[in-house]
Amino acid sequence: MTEIDQPKIEESLDPPDWATLHSTAHQIIDDAISHVRDVRDRPLLQDMPTAVRDAYAAPLPLGSTALDDVYAELKSNLLPYPMGNIHPRFWMWYMGSGSFSGALGEFLAAIDGSNLGGGNFAGALMDGQVTNWLKKMMGFPETASGTLVSGGSMANIVGLTVARNALAGIDVRSEGVAAIKQPLSYYASDQAHSCHQKAVELLGLGNKALRRVPSDSDLCMNLAELRRRIDEDRDAGRRPACVIATAGTVNTGAIDDLKAIRQLCDAEGLWLHVDGCIGALMTIAPENRHLVDGIEYADSLALDPHKWLHAPFEAGCAIIKDAALHRDAFAVHPEYLEEKPRGIAAAEYLQDYNLQTSRGFRALKIWMTLKEHGVEKFGRLIDQNIAQARYLTEMVNEDAELELAAPTTVNIVCFRYKPAELADDALETLNTEIMIRLQESGTAAVSDTTVKGRHCLRAAICNHRTRLSDLELLLREVKAVGLEVLENG
Amino acid sequence: MTEIDQPKIEESLDPPDWATLHSTAHQIIDDAISHVRDVRDRPLLQDMPTAVRDAYAAPLPLGSTALDDVYAELKSNLLPYPMGNIHPRFWMWYMGSGSFSGALGEFLAAIDGSNLGGGNFAGALMDGQVTNWLKKMMGFPETASGTLVSGGSMANIVGLTVARNALAGIDVRSEGVAAIKQPLSYYASDQAHSCHQKAVELLGLGNKALRRVPSDSDLCMNLAELRRRIDEDRDAGRRPACVIATAGTVNTGAIDDLKAIRQLCDAEGLWLHVDGCIGALMTIAPENRHLVDGIEYADSLALDPHKWLHAPFEAGCAIIKDAALHRDAFAVHPEYLEEKPRGIAAAEYLQDYNLQTSRGFRALKIWMTLKEHGVEKFGRLIDQNIAQARYLTEMVNEDAELELAAPTTVNIVCFRYKPAELADDALETLNTEIMIRLQESGTAAVSDTTVKGRHCLRAAICNHRTRLSDLELLLREVKAVGLEVLENG
Ligand SMILES: Cc1ncc(COP(=O)(O)O)c(C=O)c1O
Ligand SMILES: Cc1ncc(COP(=O)(O)O)c(C=O)c1O
Repeated sequence: MTEIDQPKIEESLDPPDWATLHSTAHQIIDDAISHVRDVRDRPLLQDMPTAVRDAYAAPLPLGSTALDDVYAELKSNLLPYPMGNIHPRFWMWYMGSGSFSGALGEFLAAIDGSNLGGGNFAGALMDGQVTNWLKKMMGFPETASGTLVSGGSMANIVGLTVARNALAGIDVRSEGVAAIKQPLSYYASDQAHSCHQKAVELLGLGNKALRRVPSDSDLCMNLAELRRRIDEDRDAGRRPACVIATAGTVNTGAIDDLKAIRQLCDAEGLWLHVDGCIGALMTIAPENRHLVDGIEYADSLALDPHKWLHAPFEAGCAIIKDAALHRDAFAVHPEYLEEKPRGIAAAEYLQDYNLQTSRGFRALKIWMTLKEHGVEKFGRLIDQNIAQARYLTEMVNEDAELELAAPTTVNIVCFRYKPAELADDALETLNTEIMIRLQESGTAAVSDTTVKGRHCLRAAICNHRTRLSDLELLLREVKAVGLEVLENG
Repeated sequence: MTEIDQPKIEESLDPPDWATLHSTAHQIIDDAISHVRDVRDRPLLQDMPTAVRDAYAAPLPLGSTALDDVYAELKSNLLPYPMGNIHPRFWMWYMGSGSFSGALGEFLAAIDGSNLGGGNFAGALMDGQVTNWLKKMMGFPETASGTLVSGGSMANIVGLTVARNALAGIDVRSEGVAAIKQPLSYYASDQAHSCHQKAVELLGLGNKALRRVPSDSDLCMNLAELRRRIDEDRDAGRRPACVIATAGTVNTGAIDDLKAIRQLCDAEGLWLHVDGCIGALMTIAPENRHLVDGIEYADSLALDPHKWLHAPFEAGCAIIKDAALHRDAFAVHPEYLEEKPRGIAAAEYLQDYNLQTSRGFRALKIWMTLKEHGVEKFGRLIDQNIAQARYLTEMVNEDAELELAAPTTVNIVCFRYKPAELADDALETLNTEIMIRLQESGTAAVSDTTVKGRHCLRAAICNHRTRLSDLELLLREVKAVGLEVLENG
């Protein structure tokens, strides 16, 4: 063999010196503990100085830098300037607040390194176990299937794809959407999340095929309107295929009437997909689970462990009642990916249940936090957030200068500061300015939205660190800042 | 306010006792260092005892468990049974081997907690910076756009979606695929990855719309055959829309003729998508970058930092030459997600460039490892893997009992043990058994595949820990185990 040209040196990404790494890694842990432990004492948001912004324009690094120095840069330029969602007063966009053990889960998943595309190793068993736990939490039968995905948007795409393929009446994987004899229609309320638009566009059905059904004053889908649209579509020669019911809308947390929609779908032969990204996890919350009764009858369900289970990003999950339809929608078997009787490939391919080939080990962080805290505690925390939202709602209702802008169903409160009779656009300008100033000062983060034409602030309380006193502070500050804006501009 | 019902207790996921967490976290770090440092001394794979398998059937945990005990279970039931891809002799499926700093990156991303859906915070700037670095590495102009996604499959979906929407000739997002006047055809070689089939199925084009162009004996797309299929489709009233060229096929690492395909696409008005999941990163490898010359002319490109940049799962990236087309394919602007002049929402939404809404902070682990090692070192490691594959190829060629099954282009070597004239199916049984026994004994992991009808073993060397001596050991063991199977069954 000696005459064969040998590569000269052999190097790797492993550190030349594990002792230095050891001390850096321990420093990172200590700093991270302080970072999370003391989050309440820091402002939610800090403005990034120009020097920090500029650092992110630095060119591609050619040579090496000691890990210590790399970390020092992160300490000065990254960690002081987060989005703020781990802070107890973040109620802006809809997401969880993470946890320290969840972060350890991410670390351990990367150390283990396994690719959850599938195979015969412990991570794959854990992936199956966590999926089974989530099915159980949702009240789905053991025969249902599930898959962990990047988030709710992808979980919805998975569900809506299975629906499309199951209802097309042809082999749509092979023939494409243009070969479907009766064009498919999907239905969702006008409150449905925008990811459904992206999904039907992706699937080639077109945004127009997603019928927006008006919602009532409670922001739930109007079922008479749903029926009317189904009839219209049938009369026009289309195939009503799938209702997307929302269990917890992004704007106000409204929950569509899942049982009635299930009945309608049964009567009309439609697929029921439930977008439970916000509300599905209420199934584990003793005081509020009745609000999502019927969710277990969905044909497909999207839920989001990176919301109310506070898994660090990313973790979504799609559950499909009929496992065979699920697999039929995604499985492919190329010659380089065949299951074997023994060895590493002696297991089902998990990638057969969604769009990814390589898959991260999302299950571990969910497993770790579910084991550590137990599902009962997660249930209590969900009830706690809902109780907090009701408390906030009552405070708004009792205050003459504040106005509730939509009914509070669960953990989302829409309201505005309205100290006097002002025109709607003046109120919008005023409330937007309040929102921005509260963010800029690092006090609290709420978002704004428009519900039934009315602009409002929106506090979405999906945060295990929030206390009632934080919500009291929010309203005090809304009013103080509002007054300041009115008086001094 | 006192009359309002207050939630009784307030609990959170933060530990009651940070000191205990402190010691658990430090223990995890120490164990992880040993785990990675000593990986070479452990078998690649260990069989999971029944008790371990059974543990993964445990029901949903209702109550809590101390984090220490949770971790103890991971230590006994998870960490000894990984897929094996961090081991120096894993060359089975195509993936990177991770790194300790990459795992720290995952941890820090979860501690920071930011949701990379977008906003005005440091993580979003880092996401942009890393995307720019990747564009630069690929030779794309600054005006191109990019997005970090879950992996190569999703990066391909992003590229193929932009292509579909750009070539449809109608507003396909709104109208759907059935409204396209001339049905679109896509083209890829018969060696293309299976994720492209899943992609065209997802997009509603149908698998039949993906024309499989035969490959030559070098496993590259035959361009005369490509031309013929384009002409046929035009004659049949279809719209030839997109060529998917592969820079590094999954079976053998073959690289389609990117420049010639670019010319053809220009002449015929087609979109060029390059699947560079395996090969794109050769652009940074001085000795081999010429092999992917022309990749910078793609209209869209998929690459995979969780392969040759060894980012822990998941990290893929799609790059699109025309940023406006990219955004036009995915952007939506619901009322609850509006950009603001100041505050947290004072930035472009990163979710406008792909299918996710919430997005994990994938950029950090890439940023950390690129900073630490520098792009030049990653380039050397790629050259090193390719040199190792050539060395393995030469060893196979020099050994009368081994047979090369396909030409080695870069880092994938297809070969079989053929000690005598045996029928093809006997060779397949023999080589499959060798492969499985090497895995079962924890010696080395190669896969098998079928190239041009011939079954073979396949070593895909995308591993920064591999040394030449590991490859010598592989061939020794293949022959020893092969002999053993022949002699004793
Ligand atoms: C009702 C609903 N559906 C879907 C999503 C999208 O979930 P993700 O951000 O995890 O993709 C959200 C996000 O908040 C949501 O509120
Ligand atoms: C050529 C090619 N394309 C696409 C993919 C899919 O990439 P991922 O597993 O990151 O989804 C692979 C995976 O190995 C590949 O080799």
